[in-house]
Amino acid sequence: MLLLLKFAVLLLTLGLCQGNRQPNILVEDVEDVEPAFEPSRFGSLWPLPQKVKISQDSFKLGSSFRIVDGKGSSAGSSCNILQNAYRRYYEYIFGGAKRQGLGKNRRSAPSELTELRVYITSADSECDGYPSVKSDESYDLSVVQPFAVLRAPKVWGALHGLETFSQLVYEDEYGAKSINATAISDFPRFAHRGILLDTSRHFLPVKVILANLETMAMNKFNVFHWHIVDDPSFPYLSRTFPQLSQQGSYHPYTHVYTPADVKMVIEFARLRGIRVIPEFDTPGHTQSWGKGQPDLLTPCYSGATPSGTFGPVNPILNTTYDFMAQFFKEISSVFPDGYVHLGGDEVDFTCWKSNPDIQKFMDAQGFGKDYSKLESFYIQKLLNIVTTTKKGYIIWQEVFDNGVTLKPDTVVHVWIGSGTNEEMSKVTAAGYTTILSAPWYLDYISIGQDWRNYYKVEPLNFNGTEKQKALVIGGEACLWGEFVDATNLTPRLWPRASAVGERLWSSKDVTDLNDAFNRLSVHRCRMVERGIPAEPLFYSYCPREYKGL
Amino acid sequence: MLLLLKFAVLLLTLGLCQGNRQPNILVEDVEDVEPAFEPSRFGSLWPLPQKVKISQDSFKLGSSFRIVDGKGSSAGSSCNILQNAYRRYYEYIFGGAKRQGLGKNRRSAPSELTELRVYITSADSECDGYPSVKSDESYDLSVVQPFAVLRAPKVWGALHGLETFSQLVYEDEYGAKSINATAISDFPRFAHRGILLDTSRHFLPVKVILANLETMAMNKFNVFHWHIVDDPSFPYLSRTFPQLSQQGSYHPYTHVYTPADVKMVIEFARLRGIRVIPEFDTPGHTQSWGKGQPDLLTPCYSGATPSGTFGPVNPILNTTYDFMAQFFKEISSVFPDGYVHLGGDEVDFTCWKSNPDIQKFMDAQGFGKDYSKLESFYIQKLLNIVTTTKKGYIIWQEVFDNGVTLKPDTVVHVWIGSGTNEEMSKVTAAGYTTILSAPWYLDYISIGQDWRNYYKVEPLNFNGTEKQKALVIGGEACLWGEFVDATNLTPRLWPRASAVGERLWSSKDVTDLNDAFNRLSVHRCRMVERGIPAEPLFYSYCPREYKGL
Repeated sequence: MLLLLKFAVLLLTLGLCQGNRQPNILVEDVEDVEPAFEPSRFGSLWPLPQKVKISQDSFKLGSSFRIVDGKGSSAGSSCNILQNAYRRYYEYIFGGAKRQGLGKNRRSAPSELTELRVYITSADSECDGYPSVKSDESYDLSVVQPFAVLRAPKVWGALHGLETFSQLVYEDEYGAKSINATAISDFPRFAHRGILLDTSRHFLPVKVILANLETMAMNKFNVFHWHIVDDPSFPYLSRTFPQLSQQGSYHPYTHVYTPADVKMVIEFARLRGIRVIPEFDTPGHTQSWGKGQPDLLTPCYSGATPSGTFGPVNPILNTTYDFMAQFFKEISSVFPDGYVHLGGDEVDFTCWKSNPDIQKFMDAQGFGKDYSKLESFYIQKLLNIVTTTKKGYIIWQEVFDNGVTLKPDTVVHVWIGSGTNEEMSKVTAAGYTTILSAPWYLDYISIGQDWRNYYKVEPLNFNGTEKQKALVIGGEACLWGEFVDATNLTPRLWPRASAVGERLWSSKDVTDLNDAFNRLSVHRCRMVERGIPAEPLFYSYCPREYKGL
Repeated sequence: MLLLLKFAVLLLTLGLCQGNRQPNILVEDVEDVEPAFEPSRFGSLWPLPQKVKISQDSFKLGSSFRIVDGKGSSAGSSCNILQNAYRRYYEYIFGGAKRQGLGKNRRSAPSELTELRVYITSADSECDGYPSVKSDESYDLSVVQPFAVLRAPKVWGALHGLETFSQLVYEDEYGAKSINATAISDFPRFAHRGILLDTSRHFLPVKVILANLETMAMNKFNVFHWHIVDDPSFPYLSRTFPQLSQQGSYHPYTHVYTPADVKMVIEFARLRGIRVIPEFDTPGHTQSWGKGQPDLLTPCYSGATPSGTFGPVNPILNTTYDFMAQFFKEISSVFPDGYVHLGGDEVDFTCWKSNPDIQKFMDAQGFGKDYSKLESFYIQKLLNIVTTTKKGYIIWQEVFDNGVTLKPDTVVHVWIGSGTNEEMSKVTAAGYTTILSAPWYLDYISIGQDWRNYYKVEPLNFNGTEKQKALVIGGEACLWGEFVDATNLTPRLWPRASAVGERLWSSKDVTDLNDAFNRLSVHRCRMVERGIPAEPLFYSYCPREYKGL
């Protein structure tokens, strides 16, 4: 197949077998995965679309090739999202090389593809809106001579279709940009396909966040879960409480996200169909909050006197809730997404137990010695506060486990356990919308192709009715920040997260590991060519290696 | 201590305690290493010199600060190694900022350090030579007002002294470059301190190799073990046998090291006191050799007929030895180091066993069914060939284990087993010089601070006499290439390899993990400031984060 010519060299050189020269310790991951690279019949499409038909007829993309608004499209030249995307994908396709058109009157060659025409087919293109969990992301792509047609109800689907189109383009043996006649009909299996990055344990320069949003778009992810603050640092510059980052960040100027930074991240993401969901995790994981907000955290006691250290948010003071009300009012206006992530995980009761005022409060409330009741008391009040901001909320599974009363539209985020598990059954049986992260903690690393384990996960593989399964709206790959910063985050995330991306987008029956290896190998090199240091899957090479360090 | 002012912010922000939010799977590495960052009394020196005395008196480095040849030094302005190093360290110290001197007649302030004077004290500075296993790398550094003095018998020690000097410079709270009065006397514990990089499983652009040589110098490594070819690809462009890379590389133009490339790597390394030891591993690990050199590899048989696949180098043909003689003659002239690494590991006998000609040869030689005898037969002939080139050789431990006759100056490279072990006893008891890599396979990764495990290794912790221990000349950190290329190699190698660097350089009693953490944290940020994406040890920040992705 002509489509596959560009992979010919890879094929020739990757078919070898060889040892690994490793000491006699655990190597199962390595040993069982001798790559037998051969081109996939789906080329380098990633994630695999729902329906793909690729013919052997190939067309060339000449120097006058253009991506244009289709006549009658509901989004035109004033639609920033599309115009930006046209430029972006033109540059990806032609490698940023400046190409001069030969004039409009030049006759196109018989096997030339002259245009990609983009039609937004519904009356409201949503061009000026934000993506949401309900966004229509579907699209149809038809590559026929002399022009290809991309149709999508909304701009969100058009963005995905442009990425898919760019993935169909290859270089023939003379370096000519080529594409095969193709028909694709596509939509995501799950609506929530996220990446969690943690900017508290290590600050990530805005440049790094943007590059990863760009890469998320290449993998059809649509949620950036921004775990923006946590114990180690508070880099979010709050207009209402500037002392939080002034005192709680690693550095109040060089290691903070200003309102302008946050705005830029949100707009950059919107242009790529990506939602930005911030997480402000309480009452635990809040050490850094305490520095700039006196009395917010619980003073811990050593015997009868305060020890000078602090525990979780102090749930017994009215000032705590006044603060939270003001703070989340700001958050609800800064972040346009319909949801905010409220955390609620891993609350350590040691400090609460040590504090005599807390003990009195527990007695007064009749909580006895059950501190999870105190935790629930706090969370309940917080949820009520956030509800007044008209936002939905996502919480880590402990909040559900502890029996806190939740709004029916609450999203429960399952993270404990290494695979899908009973928790998914329980949460969905209780009628809550669920997202899954437990099998996708990408901060756990090991030698070998661990992407295969992420890929093998079937999110709906738990005991439950069809109705329960319909409550699983997707998942997130989490890259916690203990061991990653600007130096190593991007190659550690990609292409490992790509495996999660396909699992969440493609049809349930797309499970062929060999085919995935073949497509992902080329997809990885495409990310590298686009300037993203996506790490290798196994020994191999890219025609154009990464230019950085 | 004034020296520590620059660490004050890190100290303030790193003293926190917090959870890790990880699923309930193996986290022992993470849990036991809550960092309690506090400045080391040795500042950010890495690896720690043998003798250090730092006083509280501090001096400033003004804009007219210079590194100059001391009067009477045996190396002067014609010594490239030193002049290049002066420029390099001047730029590291002053961050590449252009600083204008205020004229030579300006009076220096009372607490100003105006010069670092460098004296090479032995008659032969070795300025135009290559480093060797016998090089004198010692130096003495005295920082007193108004000028510091660096004395070293040879340029190699001076290079290390310049690095040490640059590590003593810090910024005071006003950003002024400062240094404390210091007396250092230093030399390496082990003579062979290496990094193995594998350019066969993934091709590494020359730029990546050079950046890692630069980083090796920052960590006082002195051997680049260049595992240049292996099964997957043969990127070494041989002048004698150009077909080897023409046919055996991933790509004959973009994925090869030309003679000019190799020369550049060697000279770049020499300027930093680093030896380049190439490894041409035979008879196994040679699949890529067979493509450009017909009849070099053993044809495997399936029953009575050749299967079309090939095994190790064919040891029964005279043409094999003619080829090796010519090939290693070239290698011995291209690579100036006194040693070449000949590999000899992991020979798979399956193919040999299948081949009827090999069986006949075995019978004729009286080897019976013991294929390790055939392996030894081959290796013996190869060693004899290499001996005629006047090179010493290093071999992987299997060659010794199999009882091959070795020259007395052979270096045996121990790699099997996860720690130091019986093999070290055996090899040294037999009187051979030894280098250790078994505990330092850096391609094995896991979440957590695995550098601590590398650091805890005591290379001489095996049963043996003092005479045996004296045969251990050092070790190497190995980063095999299955899963690393230009996208992720550098952050995966550093600062993990830095732990090995200190173990091989510093005194045996430098074992304080907390002090090491504190120094290495700052050393890591220094590498980042110098443009090297060295990954973080744990949650923290660098005053100036990495600028790339």
